[in-house]
Amino acid sequence: MPNSVYKIIELVGSSPTSWEDAVNNAVTKASESLRDLRICEVVQLDTKIENGKIVAYRARVQLSFKYEKE
Amino acid sequence: MPNSVYKIIELVGSSPTSWEDAVNNAVTKASESLRDLRICEVVQLDTKIENGKIVAYRARVQLSFKYEKE
Amino acid sequence: MPNSVYKIIELVGSSPTSWEDAVNNAVTKASESLRDLRICEVVQLDTKIENGKIVAYRARVQLSFKYEKE
Amino acid sequence: MPNSVYKIIELVGSSPTSWEDAVNNAVTKASESLRDLRICEVVQLDTKIENGKIVAYRARVQLSFKYEKE
Amino acid sequence: MPNSVYKIIELVGSSPTSWEDAVNNAVTKASESLRDLRICEVVQLDTKIENGKIVAYRARVQLSFKYEKE
Amino acid sequence: MPNSVYKIIELVGSSPTSWEDAVNNAVTKASESLRDLRICEVVQLDTKIENGKIVAYRARVQLSFKYEKE
Amino acid sequence: MPNSVYKIIELVGSSPTSWEDAVNNAVTKASESLRDLRICEVVQLDTKIENGKIVAYRARVQLSFKYEKE
Amino acid sequence: MPNSVYKIIELVGSSPTSWEDAVNNAVTKASESLRDLRICEVVQLDTKIENGKIVAYRARVQLSFKYEKE
Amino acid sequence: MPNSVYKIIELVGSSPTSWEDAVNNAVTKASESLRDLRICEVVQLDTKIENGKIVAYRARVQLSFKYEKE
Amino acid sequence: MPNSVYKIIELVGSSPTSWEDAVNNAVTKASESLRDLRICEVVQLDTKIENGKIVAYRARVQLSFKYEKE
Amino acid sequence: MPNSVYKIIELVGSSPTSWEDAVNNAVTKASESLRDLRICEVVQLDTKIENGKIVAYRARVQLSFKYEKE
Amino acid sequence: MPNSVYKIIELVGSSPTSWEDAVNNAVTKASESLRDLRICEVVQLDTKIENGKIVAYRARVQLSFKYEKE
Repeated sequence: MPNSVYKIIELVGSSPTSWEDAVNNAVTKASESLRDLRICEVVQLDTKIENGKIVAYRARVQLSFKYEKE
Repeated sequence: MPNSVYKIIELVGSSPTSWEDAVNNAVTKASESLRDLRICEVVQLDTKIENGKIVAYRARVQLSFKYEKE
Repeated sequence: MPNSVYKIIELVGSSPTSWEDAVNNAVTKASESLRDLRICEVVQLDTKIENGKIVAYRARVQLSFKYEKE
Repeated sequence: MPNSVYKIIELVGSSPTSWEDAVNNAVTKASESLRDLRICEVVQLDTKIENGKIVAYRARVQLSFKYEKE
Repeated sequence: MPNSVYKIIELVGSSPTSWEDAVNNAVTKASESLRDLRICEVVQLDTKIENGKIVAYRARVQLSFKYEKE
Repeated sequence: MPNSVYKIIELVGSSPTSWEDAVNNAVTKASESLRDLRICEVVQLDTKIENGKIVAYRARVQLSFKYEKE
Repeated sequence: MPNSVYKIIELVGSSPTSWEDAVNNAVTKASESLRDLRICEVVQLDTKIENGKIVAYRARVQLSFKYEKE
Repeated sequence: MPNSVYKIIELVGSSPTSWEDAVNNAVTKASESLRDLRICEVVQLDTKIENGKIVAYRARVQLSFKYEKE
Repeated sequence: MPNSVYKIIELVGSSPTSWEDAVNNAVTKASESLRDLRICEVVQLDTKIENGKIVAYRARVQLSFKYEKE
Repeated sequence: MPNSVYKIIELVGSSPTSWEDAVNNAVTKASESLRDLRICEVVQLDTKIENGKIVAYRARVQLSFKYEKE
Repeated sequence: MPNSVYKIIELVGSSPTSWEDAVNNAVTKASESLRDLRICEVVQLDTKIENGKIVAYRARVQLSFKYEKE
Repeated sequence: MPNSVYKIIELVGSSPTSWEDAVNNAVTKASESLRDLRICEVVQLDTKIENGKIVAYRARVQLSFKYEKE
């Protein structure tokens, strides 16, 4: 990657089953409009609770990809 | 939530299978005596090892719920 | 305070007008059931938004007071 | 929010009077071109000083909203 | 510890002689009303000064114990 | 500012009404003996409580100014 | 563990399926040449992406074990 | 800058010679499509190694500029 | 402390016997030229080693006192 | 130290009496197989508790020494 | 350094060419009025940009030296 | 890298001229006894000062490489 520039954006993915699936949902959504996705770092994990039960696993991630223009 | 106050407590859940299950155990235990649980943030993940094998996935979490009184 | 022990709890106060008022709400609620409140440190500030407008200023705080028993 | 994805951007709002107003300016500006704004977390607060007087309260914030596409 | 849940509380112990003694005071006080205390992590150390002399060594600690109910 | 050097000092300002006013008090005091004050970053916000009421909003800040000599 | 000394090393495990499996791979590899493994703390989680799909879940961990000699 | 709003984006620049050059590459690329660039803060520095030699100095930076619209 | 301003300076104290003594040395030295010392927070603890033996316990501390002028 | 390279390892020392002694135990053990130990920084302090009493003071430290080879 | 006390101050150096030069400028300026400078730790690196070009490399540093008196 | 495990070690490199050279010295030394070096992350930068002049630029780095055995 000689002198190429990457951009990093922050997303929150969500899933009723696992954090792996939550990250997968964020990556899938981002790959619809971005190319050259490279690495996705987890910044924060949490769960949403309703009526005493976990209803969503959420992952806040930083996603890097080749920077074209703003 | 006009002017309502929430409290945050810190728990460590444990499971032989996954961190999702570890958090689920902490939430289930807490929901026995607390109501209006809202969000559960992961602070730290680790595993306990015995004889070279993982025997427990542990999650340290911060759990928020409506504050009634101490 | 020779050898006395203090406890620190974490609360989230909320207000439609300011973070000072949000903290004040948390302190007022806590003082109903706790005595000897001493210091309240801000851990996180955020705002809740609805329809493009701020509807609540929220402050996550750590409140210290004399520790009697659990 | 089943499986929906949120994006988080970082803005710096400014005001001559207060940090609440500084955040309000950032949210108002963002709501001109973004919909479904949800939460705005404070990352850093500072003030600009000229001739020994505070001329601007500035708030660096992270703003989350529904992610459509890049 | 199959699936058991632990709770973590934050205390500030104080002593005129050392931080070890300050932590010991916090643990002793907590053990009056809590059982199954396990680990006590130091979060912050400071000293209180009066008339240019240290009058108290203080330790802010996180104490973990078996979670029964709120 | 070609090659000029700035110094940063840490102050704690206090006010009975707001954190903006607390920072203002620190800046006003510092400007009595320092010139070329530039930026004042907030490091920590807390409140002092007496008899269950907030008596002071305190702001710990880092203040930068042109460095002349020690 | 009277006066015994532990060492902590940092590893990155990888798996195509989950972070639990990634940590398991790191622990399994380490247990080939180290004995008395005790705890494995997660420092960072990320995923590697190729052609818009997650191809590896990676976990950076700190692994503690009885210290014999360098 | 009365009430103006700034945005902060995160980029990774790369160079075979130095971190100063890596940041310069990121700024040059960004200035093709953004105006009013102001400050570029370093978040992380690393190097890529191949065959025991450093082949790239990389700088992860946060770049602020006047916010027009999303 | 109505509206008074405090300053915080950073010192490193050293002692051949303990960290409590190291902090005490820093406080004693500072109290020769500063009045109204209040609190001394520990930022970092380390030890200096010579010939495989600890020769000094060092404590990096932040010391607060009433701010008169620069 | 012209161009010499140092390595840093992480150890946990333990003692029934004090954190100074815990660090001393880690340094003594390390000096059996490493030479040119230089500085030992404290990363974390905690205590192990049994039956409501502290049974061990533990210090997690980073120890630097001259790097020969892996 | 038996029992001697060191002070740490925070400066921001600036240079049109590199961060090494920026730190050098801060050290040179400080050495005009301070003696026994020892170590200079980097806290933050950034660059100032004008018209899409880097005009200054800035380094925020913590400088330690023998503490005489305030 | 299907399921392979990497190890991360921490080194301090030093150079009289620049931090790039300091990191280069650490990488060169490590590559004498380690293979498959991959990435070298900067953890801390500082300089050593003698007689008011910088005599060494030092970089504390984390170096990752393929993990064979302890």
